[in-house]
Amino acid sequence: MSDTREQILEQIKLQGDLVRQLKASKESKEKPLAPSSVERAFSTTVGQQVKAQQQQQQLLQEQQQQQQQMHKIDEEVARLLALKATLGGDAAPANQKFTLKTPKGTRDYAPQQMTLRQGVLDKIIQVFKRHGGEAIDTPVFELKVSGQSPTKLILLTLIAMQEVLTGKYGEDSKLIYDLKDQGGEILSMRYDLTVPLARYLAMNKISSIKRYHIAKVYRRDNPAMTRGRYREFYQCDFDIAGTYDPMLADAECVKIVAEVLDTLDIGDYVIKLNHRQLLDGMFEACGVPAKDFRAICSAVDKLDKSPWQDVRKEMVEEKGLNGAVADQIGEYVRLSGGKELVAQLLADPKLKAVPNAVKGLEGMQLLLNYCALFNLDSRVSFDLSLARGLDYYTGVIYEGVLKADPTAAGSPAKASPVLENGKAIAGGDQGAGTVGSVAGGGRYDNLVGMFDARGKAVPCVGVSIGVERIFAVLEAKFAASNVKLRTNDVEVYVASAHKGLHEQRLRVLNQLWDAGIKAEHSYKLNPKLLAQLQHCEEHQIPLAIVLGDAELAQGVVKLREVSTRQEATVPLTELAAEIRSRLKA
Amino acid sequence: MSDTREQILEQIKLQGDLVRQLKASKESKEKPLAPSSVERAFSTTVGQQVKAQQQQQQLLQEQQQQQQQMHKIDEEVARLLALKATLGGDAAPANQKFTLKTPKGTRDYAPQQMTLRQGVLDKIIQVFKRHGGEAIDTPVFELKVSGQSPTKLILLTLIAMQEVLTGKYGEDSKLIYDLKDQGGEILSMRYDLTVPLARYLAMNKISSIKRYHIAKVYRRDNPAMTRGRYREFYQCDFDIAGTYDPMLADAECVKIVAEVLDTLDIGDYVIKLNHRQLLDGMFEACGVPAKDFRAICSAVDKLDKSPWQDVRKEMVEEKGLNGAVADQIGEYVRLSGGKELVAQLLADPKLKAVPNAVKGLEGMQLLLNYCALFNLDSRVSFDLSLARGLDYYTGVIYEGVLKADPTAAGSPAKASPVLENGKAIAGGDQGAGTVGSVAGGGRYDNLVGMFDARGKAVPCVGVSIGVERIFAVLEAKFAASNVKLRTNDVEVYVASAHKGLHEQRLRVLNQLWDAGIKAEHSYKLNPKLLAQLQHCEEHQIPLAIVLGDAELAQGVVKLREVSTRQEATVPLTELAAEIRSRLKA
Repeated sequence: MSDTREQILEQIKLQGDLVRQLKASKESKEKPLAPSSVERAFSTTVGQQVKAQQQQQQLLQEQQQQQQQMHKIDEEVARLLALKATLGGDAAPANQKFTLKTPKGTRDYAPQQMTLRQGVLDKIIQVFKRHGGEAIDTPVFELKVSGQSPTKLILLTLIAMQEVLTGKYGEDSKLIYDLKDQGGEILSMRYDLTVPLARYLAMNKISSIKRYHIAKVYRRDNPAMTRGRYREFYQCDFDIAGTYDPMLADAECVKIVAEVLDTLDIGDYVIKLNHRQLLDGMFEACGVPAKDFRAICSAVDKLDKSPWQDVRKEMVEEKGLNGAVADQIGEYVRLSGGKELVAQLLADPKLKAVPNAVKGLEGMQLLLNYCALFNLDSRVSFDLSLARGLDYYTGVIYEGVLKADPTAAGSPAKASPVLENGKAIAGGDQGAGTVGSVAGGGRYDNLVGMFDARGKAVPCVGVSIGVERIFAVLEAKFAASNVKLRTNDVEVYVASAHKGLHEQRLRVLNQLWDAGIKAEHSYKLNPKLLAQLQHCEEHQIPLAIVLGDAELAQGVVKLREVSTRQEATVPLTELAAEIRSRLKA
Repeated sequence: MSDTREQILEQIKLQGDLVRQLKASKESKEKPLAPSSVERAFSTTVGQQVKAQQQQQQLLQEQQQQQQQMHKIDEEVARLLALKATLGGDAAPANQKFTLKTPKGTRDYAPQQMTLRQGVLDKIIQVFKRHGGEAIDTPVFELKVSGQSPTKLILLTLIAMQEVLTGKYGEDSKLIYDLKDQGGEILSMRYDLTVPLARYLAMNKISSIKRYHIAKVYRRDNPAMTRGRYREFYQCDFDIAGTYDPMLADAECVKIVAEVLDTLDIGDYVIKLNHRQLLDGMFEACGVPAKDFRAICSAVDKLDKSPWQDVRKEMVEEKGLNGAVADQIGEYVRLSGGKELVAQLLADPKLKAVPNAVKGLEGMQLLLNYCALFNLDSRVSFDLSLARGLDYYTGVIYEGVLKADPTAAGSPAKASPVLENGKAIAGGDQGAGTVGSVAGGGRYDNLVGMFDARGKAVPCVGVSIGVERIFAVLEAKFAASNVKLRTNDVEVYVASAHKGLHEQRLRVLNQLWDAGIKAEHSYKLNPKLLAQLQHCEEHQIPLAIVLGDAELAQGVVKLREVSTRQEATVPLTELAAEIRSRLKA
């Protein structure tokens, strides 16, 4: 590219002129203003009054303009640097001190992390597929306001609903990343995968699907990166949409949670189950005023992190609940168990008088029955303290919670909550026995209908796997175990024993690649043998081929097992077959 | 959720009040302005002059305020609708007519498309891994301006460079999606995967890696969705970074292109090869003024879409090149061949006098030699018309081009170019014999150094697979063939022959899932047998189990092969094993 140098130099000159011009114009504007002709026409008191007003307005405008101009100058300087940079070498901004970084709350994934993640995601996908899941994907951003406006309000609704549903409305509507208005549509980054699913189903008039969706979502939350809370993070959702008989799909989602946690082998867990209708009925039975259901439910939701006394205090002191009513709730929310608990509550005089409570309990009975058929008796726990905020859930709710590993000193028991489906799954300071939620979900029968022109409902039940928390747990495990994860899958390394063999290496490599064997070599013509063998050990490549003139003359090579350093002589014609059989062993 | 109704109604009332208040305030502002006290103080001509000026300013401000208020009102109305929507049923905005859609230039991927895509990507990943590739990922957005400003200019440079490098600088800097300034950092969506790689390497001081990166990138380009050009689209890159001996890594990238196109089996192809230094040397030899190299090179780049006469015309008439010089270029750029062409050009009196040309030709000689060792002789073509714009390439450049399928009437020969690595790969109206570029890349030795504080260079060579074009080709193939792609992997469907068997189904399903078999059933208690079997046929599920009381009493079930409708009786205890052996067959 050296010969286009002149041309780039010319561009740099022009760009430099532009920057100097902009800077000069900025300076001249910063000087005290010369009185304008209009200003000069007044010298009366009234005139001065107007003048003061005008000056204030002008000042404001100028401040704005200056800011814009600063941006403009920065941009043009950047272009200048970019042009200089294309020249490379000494014209590059080499003497500048700069810290490159990723945006706040985000990070790069290095090969080590990608390997871990891909392994986790592959296992989860396998479970989703085992249950007939189909994959979909949606754009990373959704319309917020469309320039052509029939859709405008509805799409705004979609975004506002995210705020409403996540309970963030009113408190902090800045959780959603907006794109800059560059003309045309107003876009926002997706906040979760559930609202895009509802939009997808309504838009395409799909009334039944089993879909999974694994993708990154975006929240302008306060990041706590050392504790695994990011602004860009994966969600991993499986949902069953369709009008079906009660609890069949719901129970399968619970089974999926169990299969995922079993296959990931990240420790003992329990799947807590509850029912929204039962919660409502229970509040009613205890005498909570209907208008306080939300507030009281969100207090109950804190029981996974706080002791009952703190939650009671919040109910009574902050939310104005009658102390006696709170105590009644306290009796219920401390209950957990199985079928016998359902039977006990169905016989409870207060609850059996409330239709919602009875419906919720009957639902739980059926769900526990199906869970038993799925062999989940030892895994599930009907837990009246499970509330899962006040999202869009309308029926069953569940949460997979890892139990604390008593042997692990550095266990992530204090890890901070990871946002999932719009709420924290997993509390920070749980009581003994749990390290936090790694899966959650429930039934939401009204969401899709909100996006349908005719309000047509598509009942849904789904589960979201808290993969970020799972990644964090596994990363901690690997860090503690000192096991180095392999980041490539190379099966055999092709080495030269001495100089002048690079063409022979390429021939052997070609033979291996064409046979589907994962192979690599040094991109140096004459690498040292020791360096090549060290590379194999460092990268845990199981096999190495060592080429040498003496062997090649006989049509053979040395095949070396890297870990044992044992070598065997193998004819070139049998090389691929021999490697394949060794890899199988 | 019916019992929180009151509460939501209360919120709706409050939100309604807010909206009414905003609308009222907007109306009052829209009324003709009552004269202000300042205005009333004037009745002179000068006063009227000032008044007119003030009014104009006021009007401008008010227009801005009104616009902001309109947005505000829209947002609050949206929140109102969202609140109403959470009630579901009749309170939902059911009677509104709305068209849900995805943002301009984007689309959802339905299961059918996802299956096709995942199949393609899996095969590509397999090739990348066969060559020792490691995966990385980077955030979907990069810093444009940081609030805390040491990094500011450099990060602006990063973005500006994208504009410079993509040749879009000056013409259209709006190709990049910016995020809204919500306080803090200024972000932009990634435009390609090469600049994030360079940032990643410089930031982490990595001097050698073989990495692949498959992710979506974002360009506010004019979408041509029916022709496969989108604003959100996949890139699929493999790059080898490191200081190595000439052409070893470069040749492997060419091999990778061949392996990808072979494994995808999308038709006959050719991999065109050229060298940037040779192009520069050739221009020099023909007498092109150095300042015109860029312009002439970009004209040459059009030869894949336009005949030489048009390109010559552009050179002479638009770019002011001497006609005789253009004719000399014309002689060269129409050449293509193999090693013999290199030898011929090395003997060319004009070229052998130009050091750049000789260096480029010697590079080509080495590359073709290595390609021969990789058995690519019939696949590669040294083609002097290949220019690949004026990106960041500094050495070898290559492009994988599909040859036209003479038998396919509806072949995508007229498909529009897909942007790849910042330039169109694949032209619209190629001459006979090619349908367009589906892979491209080359060597870029100076890019990483631009992001390094000390300008430390990390030489790179890479390849980008044009997956969107490949998807389009395959989608067209599938549409033409009438073959329906399976979108789930279900191996066996568990059906009931009559009523009352749903619990038995769950037991059998549980047994199958625990054995790792992909299985599903109807989520209805008593589905009709015909409907269940139709589901199997529609979804191409190979096997069905039909449960019936009579069989279950004997501990057996019927196992049905869906395509042949043949049934066999299998003991429940042997079911998983039997299914597995049938699936293998």
